[in-house]
Amino acid sequence: MDDDLMLMIPGPTPVPDPVLLAMAKPTIGHRSGDFSLIMKEVTEHLKWLHQTTNDVLIVAGSGTSAMEAGIINFLSAGDRVLVGSNGKFGDRWAKVAKAYNLNVEVISAEWGQPLDTEQFRQTLEADANKEIKAVIITHSETSTGVINDLQTINGYVKTHGTALMMVDAVTSLGAISVPVDEWGLDVVASGSQKGYMIPPGLGFVSVSPKAWEAYKTATLPKFYLDLGMYSKSAAKDSNPFTPPVNLFYGLQVALQMLKAEGLEQVFSRHQRSKTAIREAVKALGLSLFASDDVASPAVTAVAPERVEAEKIRSTMRKQFNIALAGGQDHLKGKIFRIGHLGFIGDRDILTCISALEATLQQLGDTGFTPGAGVSAAAKVLG
Amino acid sequence: MDDDLMLMIPGPTPVPDPVLLAMAKPTIGHRSGDFSLIMKEVTEHLKWLHQTTNDVLIVAGSGTSAMEAGIINFLSAGDRVLVGSNGKFGDRWAKVAKAYNLNVEVISAEWGQPLDTEQFRQTLEADANKEIKAVIITHSETSTGVINDLQTINGYVKTHGTALMMVDAVTSLGAISVPVDEWGLDVVASGSQKGYMIPPGLGFVSVSPKAWEAYKTATLPKFYLDLGMYSKSAAKDSNPFTPPVNLFYGLQVALQMLKAEGLEQVFSRHQRSKTAIREAVKALGLSLFASDDVASPAVTAVAPERVEAEKIRSTMRKQFNIALAGGQDHLKGKIFRIGHLGFIGDRDILTCISALEATLQQLGDTGFTPGAGVSAAAKVLG
Repeated sequence: MDDDLMLMIPGPTPVPDPVLLAMAKPTIGHRSGDFSLIMKEVTEHLKWLHQTTNDVLIVAGSGTSAMEAGIINFLSAGDRVLVGSNGKFGDRWAKVAKAYNLNVEVISAEWGQPLDTEQFRQTLEADANKEIKAVIITHSETSTGVINDLQTINGYVKTHGTALMMVDAVTSLGAISVPVDEWGLDVVASGSQKGYMIPPGLGFVSVSPKAWEAYKTATLPKFYLDLGMYSKSAAKDSNPFTPPVNLFYGLQVALQMLKAEGLEQVFSRHQRSKTAIREAVKALGLSLFASDDVASPAVTAVAPERVEAEKIRSTMRKQFNIALAGGQDHLKGKIFRIGHLGFIGDRDILTCISALEATLQQLGDTGFTPGAGVSAAAKVLG
Repeated sequence: MDDDLMLMIPGPTPVPDPVLLAMAKPTIGHRSGDFSLIMKEVTEHLKWLHQTTNDVLIVAGSGTSAMEAGIINFLSAGDRVLVGSNGKFGDRWAKVAKAYNLNVEVISAEWGQPLDTEQFRQTLEADANKEIKAVIITHSETSTGVINDLQTINGYVKTHGTALMMVDAVTSLGAISVPVDEWGLDVVASGSQKGYMIPPGLGFVSVSPKAWEAYKTATLPKFYLDLGMYSKSAAKDSNPFTPPVNLFYGLQVALQMLKAEGLEQVFSRHQRSKTAIREAVKALGLSLFASDDVASPAVTAVAPERVEAEKIRSTMRKQFNIALAGGQDHLKGKIFRIGHLGFIGDRDILTCISALEATLQQLGDTGFTPGAGVSAAAKVLG
């Protein structure tokens, strides 16, 4: 039997049926009053999710387009920026910054390790002339399952006073609290196919008043990703360019679902999923790629020693129709990643772990006690 | 009764049910073999629709993002470009070019008039030093319902030899023949919510070998819209950034429908729709904003004299649930526009015209013979 595909990858994440069905509604004109009502509602709910009164703007594009918009709207060529990089996405923002001729200084850490906050403190403190215009970091690094200490780094940015705090929250928004106003985060970018529980195609960017001040003098060239135009249109519940109407239908329903669940519940569910998976993985005697104290609530990377990672992925996919993610770049074949963000509940966690156990058994792995993983997960979920 | 909304606007256009339902299928991973198969198929069909062996790349974004990508990938700051502008979209490409610090020379015509091909010939001929790097024109100007003489202007560009021919084909691709290879068009951009019969959210760009040569030395900054990355990925049936998976489901079905209908049939259907609407409008004694010889196959602008344009739109919308477009910018309130591209057939044309007649009657217009519009349309469709 060819069972339904179960997505346990860090994006696209599973899309709830009500969201899928909403997207099948006939398209309407984006300049209509009916569409403006949708725009108004989703914008309000996005601000709720971001815990902010800042603008939260919607761009038709991937998470990368949102993050690129977040960088290029507030800077000029030659501006000095600090980019934290401890994985594929940190690397990407350094590439974006270089492509736009910014003066990029990368603070890197090994893949699997968190960014060293101390390096940010020292570099920012040493910048007496306030040349650093922005600090760019990835909150949850999807490629390794590490969460960076945004709060601490942001504290140093606030002490610096001049630099803008720009955050890739693509796999953290909706999975863990990102209190934009409380922390004073200037630019926070995210994408629809993650915690938002809708298919890819929309990016989100929140922008602080301080960032809008910087926008006024920023000279990097832009048009489609010019957030000033989005802000002007959003004030009239509209969009500067034709928005993906059907994805907005899905977004509307998904945000209603998140609202009904409640912010604290959403975050604690992700926390529970993460812990259950990690405890199960430990009970199966498999190595976790990131340590407990820096583990992402969105994705868990596992570095199996007794069985090849790709064999595990392949059996999970073929026999149980469960998609796991592989390693990226130099981690290809060395790790597999379990996505547990978005529309993932207790049942999914148990399903995934029990299939993982069955997979290991089939691959001849005798290095664990059958049932130990499910039992450990059940204890956390109980 | 609140009837289904009928879209007779120049985008978003009506989406066929099989396309809507396809979009409600569960999202799959974009790095999976299953998605690669979809990517392969839609890319082949896009080349068929563009009548080309050139790359046809798919960008997650609006038509504007596709056109911006088409401009910025092949040019450097200071490059001299000729932009044809006889409506809102021509104006937009001049704005994009200026935002990227190109040396922009606008050849404009009054809204409702076509671009003067002779001005292009003279300017290109006078450019003995071959400083002009690109000629940018809008094929079908959505804001006025005028189609520009792309073939003639392209001929002058070919004689010039150096300049790239860049075309906004947003409302012409899929409505009228745009023979990319036969004419040697270098860059052709379009968007999903038009002739493609799917909701907004995808943009398409075809790129000639000559444009790829220019890409090698072009220095405008870009990352998300860097078409080189899309080309590299497309060669492996993949995407550089997470693609809108569910919109791809819709695209796959829509292109299959177009393929089944056949290219010539698709174009003759649009031609027939255009003529039927124009003959009906004439029979009702209403003024057509563009003359017959330059009328777009996608959209017809009507400048009614006896009754206010916005009253007609409002009654059509309220009583018959038919959405027409209004005028843009200085044409607001002066014209209304009937979209007839994409999934629009003979029945829709008759429905729209009969509702237009009923609307005029209700608004007290005695300046026409009831039934004359439908009769004129029927004659064309017969």
